[in-house]
Order: sequence, then C-alpha cells, then structure tokens
Amino acid sequence: MITSHSNKSVREVIQLNQKAKARNRQGLFVVEGIKMFAEAPEDRIERVYIAKRAETDLRSSYGDKLDRLSVEIVSDDVFDRMSDTQTPQGILCLVRQFQYGIEDLLEAVHDKKHILFILLEDLQDPGNLGTIFRTGEGAGVDGIIMSRQTVDIYNPKTIRSTMGSVYRVPFFYTDDLCETIRTLRENDITVYAAHLESTRYYDEYDYCRGTAFLVGNEGNGLRGETAGCADEYLRIPMEGSVESLNAAVASSILLYEAHRQRRNMP
Amino acid sequence: MITSHSNKSVREVIQLNQKAKARNRQGLFVVEGIKMFAEAPEDRIERVYIAKRAETDLRSSYGDKLDRLSVEIVSDDVFDRMSDTQTPQGILCLVRQFQYGIEDLLEAVHDKKHILFILLEDLQDPGNLGTIFRTGEGAGVDGIIMSRQTVDIYNPKTIRSTMGSVYRVPFFYTDDLCETIRTLRENDITVYAAHLESTRYYDEYDYCRGTAFLVGNEGNGLRGETAGCADEYLRIPMEGSVESLNAAVASSILLYEAHRQRRNMP
Repeated sequence: MITSHSNKSVREVIQLNQKAKARNRQGLFVVEGIKMFAEAPEDRIERVYIAKRAETDLRSSYGDKLDRLSVEIVSDDVFDRMSDTQTPQGILCLVRQFQYGIEDLLEAVHDKKHILFILLEDLQDPGNLGTIFRTGEGAGVDGIIMSRQTVDIYNPKTIRSTMGSVYRVPFFYTDDLCETIRTLRENDITVYAAHLESTRYYDEYDYCRGTAFLVGNEGNGLRGETAGCADEYLRIPMEGSVESLNAAVASSILLYEAHRQRRNMP
Repeated sequence: MITSHSNKSVREVIQLNQKAKARNRQGLFVVEGIKMFAEAPEDRIERVYIAKRAETDLRSSYGDKLDRLSVEIVSDDVFDRMSDTQTPQGILCLVRQFQYGIEDLLEAVHDKKHILFILLEDLQDPGNLGTIFRTGEGAGVDGIIMSRQTVDIYNPKTIRSTMGSVYRVPFFYTDDLCETIRTLRENDITVYAAHLESTRYYDEYDYCRGTAFLVGNEGNGLRGETAGCADEYLRIPMEGSVESLNAAVASSILLYEAHRQRRNMP
C-alpha cells in the first residue's frame, strides 16, 4: 500500500493531472471515478489506483476486471491528494492515449455515405470540449477533429465532461485545419462553417449526405482563412440581444439537426 | 478612493459574491466586466466600483452612463480582492434583483398564442443555468421558471454565463413546480417533460402553440411526481453508449427545435 505523499507514483499522477506536457511525454492520461473506470477499455489501462476506503466495494463490484489489471492500493489521504476532484470516488487509472489519424477516422465510419464529423478551431474551455464529445456521441458523430490550439482533450476536466465518450469517439488534432478540410472535401464530405455573417440558417441545408460542421473559438469564432476553406456558411438565428451562443450549445444544435434530418429521411 | 481591504463596501461586495443569503437579504447581486456593466439597466444599478487603473478608459467610453450613477474608485489591489474573476476588467456593479411572479411572465409575453417557457427542476450547475438563460434568449424564450432548489441565478458564475441575458429574460423561482405547471396548462400552454422513458422523440410534437419544456436535474432527471404533472413526455434520441445529455445542451436542443418549427410555420 502506498502511504507516502512523496511516493514516485503519487507525484507522477499529480503531474499527469496538471500538465499536458507530462501527459504527452508519457502517452498517458488520468481518468477518475467508477463510471470512467468501468467504461475504460481494458487493453488501454496501464494502472489502477484505489483508495483503501473504497477497496472492498470496488472488489465486490469490479473484481474480475481488477484481477486482470495492475492495481495499487493507496492510503485515503494520499489518494485524495492524487485526485483532481472535490469528492473523490476512490478510484483512478492511467490510460494510454489514443493515436488516430484522418485515415482512421475515415475508415472507422460505418456508413460512408452518411459520414458526420465536427471540426473545432481553437476551443479553449475544457468543459465545452468534453460536452461536445458527449453530445457528439449522442448525435452519432463519426469523429471529432481539432486544431492544434484547441484545449487538450486529456485535461482532467475535459475527460470528466466527456462522461466516457472520449473512449468511443475517434478524434485527432491537426496542424493544418485547411488541409484537413480539403481532405474531407475530396472524400465527398460537405464542410459547413458556423459563421455569424452567413445569410443562410443552419436548417436550410440538407445534412443527409457526408457532413462536417466547422465551429470556432468561444470568443472570436472562426478565423476568416479557416472559414474560407469550407463549402458553405451557416448561422443559428438568435433573438433578443444575444450575440453568440456557447460553443458546445452551437455544436449540439447543429449535430442534432443532422441527426433529426437523417432520422426523418424519406 | 477606497484603498483599504477592510473597508465596509469591500467586505459587502465579497459577501454578495460569496453568499446567496447576503444577496437575498439585500436584494442585490454583483455583475462584473465591461459588457455586463454596459448592458445593465441603469435604473437597477445601485453602485459602480471601478479600479483606479481602468478609470480613464471607462470614463472615456461610458462617461455619460457613469455620470448618472453612484461611482466609487478603488485602488487596484483592493479591486482585485473584490473581484470574483481571475482577470478582472476593472469594473463591477451592484444591481437590484428582479422580482417577477408568474403573472408578470404571462403578461410580458408579446404573442400570447406562441408562448415559449422553460421549466427547470433542481439544476445544480451554475454554468448550465447561465447557459440556458443565454440560449433561451437566443431561441426567443418568454420566461424561465425554476424550482426553489435550483442553483441561485445571482451566483457570480451563473451571472457571467448568462452573458447579459439575465437582464432581459423574465424568470422566477417557484415553491411548487406542479402548481405552476397547472397554472400554465390553464393558460393553454402544453407542458412537455424531458424524460428518458418517453416513447416519443422531441421532434414528433408541434411546438407552434403555447409550449413549456420541463427539464430535470443533471444527475437524476425529473422527479416522477413532477414529470407526472406534464401533458406529454419527450426524449432526445441518443446513439452509442450515451445515457444522458448535459442539461444545458438538452434544453438548447428543445428550445431551438421550437424556434425552428415556428420559423417554418406555414
């Protein structure tokens, strides 16, 4: 049992929680809580840490899975130090990062004629990004593509907000969003940029064929250059004095409009 | 100029930021930042506090409005202490709370045949609540009704996430959500409960007439008793392993579906 705050593993977990650099160097990220452990793909889990107080309960619920994994028990106070949450559930694990490329995303698609992607430029809020993963899975998205400056998906707050969707929705970061958009267009995917100056509303297009939505940064929207790479512009109408919608809300409205149209396809 | 951390006004602002009780006792709340000041209705502003470093800029942009208000200049370090944000913009004000009742909400409606309300039961996340105000205004909602256990709208984090919509969307807290639902129904408003066990999807209903959506707590959804007071149940379909959507996302999808139908009304 680990009982020392200065134990090497304890310091490693704290580093992985706090620093993107440490996560990327090791190719690992931290997931916390029972649901995130239960849904984690077994072959990606490097190690599990369990607080002493939670051991009996977790062994009785997840004994089989735990038996197949490398598990370390940690004293309660040390566990709480490792945890990034205010009310730790007594379990966290180190999970190997995903390494997808655009080919993986395109190949993983079940139904090539009805691809649905979302592209995000420079989103900064971890909660927004996680929420887009969660809603994206719900709306049947085939993949999420992010510009390099987008907040780290492996940030613990982002991971929590995905509610497990990070395990199931393929994604990657691109160094050149315009280049990626060109690749999508060559694959018969129409790219729609969410842009306040669009003259057409989002529900005036037909999303039943290959579709990718392009959504910009919370404060500034899309860069002109990036929007210029898209096929079409769209906007979500806004009443009152509202100047913009939250990025996760805008993404959700677009993805569920595509889902609605596809369900109601003749 | 206020230069002491122990000044009475400084302590008052900190209390108002931190404690719902202090806010309700005084009938005030704190708004921060240039946009929130610029949009605040002048007749509700009790006092404005400006950091010394921001005075010249703010006087040149908002001199007329400031001249009509009670303004106190505060030394920079004391202002940062009063502020609830990480990067204070140098202006905050005390604003008088709104006191709406259900009659006000029903009377304020422009178009009585096309009322749109959203009802929230026990939402706990300040960011979610603020986002629902913002999206609600965007979708043309006529009012927001919250159960008494819902997080305080005047919480500084909630206020920030409304992006000013709190000034413009009428709202109230009810002690008895079922009683309020009955009143809405007597006013020809159909109440739709978002409920995972519904057999009908949200886009199978016609929201062109008086409509109120009822959305439950983030973790537990609606109480059975509350859902039972509604006219109809609906659910948002979810692919993959998603068990629920974020409350602000679900609310946004519903409100924008109503908006879409109303725009496309024959």
